[in-house]
Amino acid sequence: MTEELPVGFTAVAAAADRLREVAVLTPLLESPALNELVEGHLLLKAEPLQRTGSFKFRGAYNAISVLQPRAVVAYSSGNHAQGVALAARLHGIRATIVMPADAPWTKLDGTRALGAEVVTYDRDRDDREAIGRAIAERDGAVLIRPYDDPLIIAGQGTAGLEMAEQAARIGVSLDAALVCCGGGGLVAGCAVALTHLVPGIAVHAVEPEGFEDTSRSLAAGRRLANPAGGRSFCDALLAPIPGEITFAVNARLLAIGLVVTEAEVRAAMRLAFRHLKIVVEPGGAVALAAALAGKLATRGRTIGVVLSGGNVDAGLFGNVLSGTD
Amino acid sequence: MTEELPVGFTAVAAAADRLREVAVLTPLLESPALNELVEGHLLLKAEPLQRTGSFKFRGAYNAISVLQPRAVVAYSSGNHAQGVALAARLHGIRATIVMPADAPWTKLDGTRALGAEVVTYDRDRDDREAIGRAIAERDGAVLIRPYDDPLIIAGQGTAGLEMAEQAARIGVSLDAALVCCGGGGLVAGCAVALTHLVPGIAVHAVEPEGFEDTSRSLAAGRRLANPAGGRSFCDALLAPIPGEITFAVNARLLAIGLVVTEAEVRAAMRLAFRHLKIVVEPGGAVALAAALAGKLATRGRTIGVVLSGGNVDAGLFGNVLSGTD
Repeated sequence: MTEELPVGFTAVAAAADRLREVAVLTPLLESPALNELVEGHLLLKAEPLQRTGSFKFRGAYNAISVLQPRAVVAYSSGNHAQGVALAARLHGIRATIVMPADAPWTKLDGTRALGAEVVTYDRDRDDREAIGRAIAERDGAVLIRPYDDPLIIAGQGTAGLEMAEQAARIGVSLDAALVCCGGGGLVAGCAVALTHLVPGIAVHAVEPEGFEDTSRSLAAGRRLANPAGGRSFCDALLAPIPGEITFAVNARLLAIGLVVTEAEVRAAMRLAFRHLKIVVEPGGAVALAAALAGKLATRGRTIGVVLSGGNVDAGLFGNVLSGTD
Repeated sequence: MTEELPVGFTAVAAAADRLREVAVLTPLLESPALNELVEGHLLLKAEPLQRTGSFKFRGAYNAISVLQPRAVVAYSSGNHAQGVALAARLHGIRATIVMPADAPWTKLDGTRALGAEVVTYDRDRDDREAIGRAIAERDGAVLIRPYDDPLIIAGQGTAGLEMAEQAARIGVSLDAALVCCGGGGLVAGCAVALTHLVPGIAVHAVEPEGFEDTSRSLAAGRRLANPAGGRSFCDALLAPIPGEITFAVNARLLAIGLVVTEAEVRAAMRLAFRHLKIVVEPGGAVALAAALAGKLATRGRTIGVVLSGGNVDAGLFGNVLSGTD
């Protein structure tokens, strides 16, 4: 059935083959304390431990290894930037990354450290896709999109495929999965893998308040944009509107979308620190926040949760730790 | 050869069999950024991801599953406490834990949350072993020592055994290993496993300044105590003198001991946050600190490093993150 979609399970499985021995098989963590809090069973996919600190390496490596370009360009708030930079370096090709000037320092610095050229732009004033296309033309480089591309979606989906396999290995069946959603690439890929491997699973996109475009679009049955000028401290999830390809997948495969507040995300980051000993960035913690804040039924159920990344500046993380909201 | 020691490789291998399916097979992490800093290859065993947030669960579970007692008592600064509490709960028996009153809140709270009874004592005034023995007598419980016990040493050694196996699986041979040292149980067990599996490896105990009793004892060839009244923020590593059994092993198997300052430990915690996305407590970061501060030759070499635990209060962690020393 999923084969009629722009991305089918075979594409995710092929990506998994390409990523074996290259990506980290990140652990599926458990915490008795978190299970007690939700009166259920949470299985947490720890993508902060992925190469470059987020799942984004998966899609970038998959796309580059299929396309085999001479050079690449990408636009990104930071995690896709680092994923593309490392994937390009591993393929021995040049990468130019277009990043918002106000991206976290750790992401700007991390991208440069991976050998990529960084070009910054203004989030509100500039069109990052246009800048990316211009550089692609200038350099003869291939544009690696952050989410709206079947190869990227298939690569990100390997996180969901691994989650299903790891849960099966410990004899557990997932009732639902929670996956963060910006442009929708990760949740689309995970939904392709999870709905194929786990019959009856409900896969939910989770978004931060103010950027719930996918939740609203799923409800409306068509792509709706976020109001312009919005701000969220979930810097990884600020896409303006669902992707065309990602939404075609998500509209078919997802259950209703869930929305979390900044306070709920901060609490989730603190609980991940305390009980999982993992650093999770704001955008990476929205799925856990949804589980902990009771945005879906957890009692007696087994829920897979993707912790999608951990690239957060020390100052912000310390500020979150010291909070009590 | 190691079979003549109080703990041989077969004891560690037997502990590994008991812990399979029970303990977390913690990942062996790598970071290009950390490798660049040391101009070598660091492989980091992430025990903060172990059950109860430190390696201590390994030894406690091994001891309890062999001894099969009706109840247990233990004295601990916190990590052993939580390890014993969970191991007792998994065996369906009662645990009483004697803890210093000034132990980190996260450790006191974590121990109680695991169902153990907590009895606090004064670090400088009281003799925790005597208190533990009195409770053992009162309840008919078996005392689970924190390090000076062959079953505990063998259990902790499974971290080293896994490290050797995980390194071999990726085709890498370890030149040296760095392991934190309080009473010496973890480093003794790891040394038994690593020297058996990796011929020629140099295993170093790493201690915080002011608590370098094992380093001095190794140099002197006999057990030397720390000066009384010392303080270190590495709360997990404050044993007064090397254990008798641990030192019998360590004197035979270890290379010279290494000592790190508090500033070096803080820097290591920050770099683990930034590049590994792992929460490491002060005592858990001393081995990484030794590698990063150049306490041994790293250039062109492959070094296994045990990150031994992640049970640190949010306030202290935030304070470390905001520092620049």
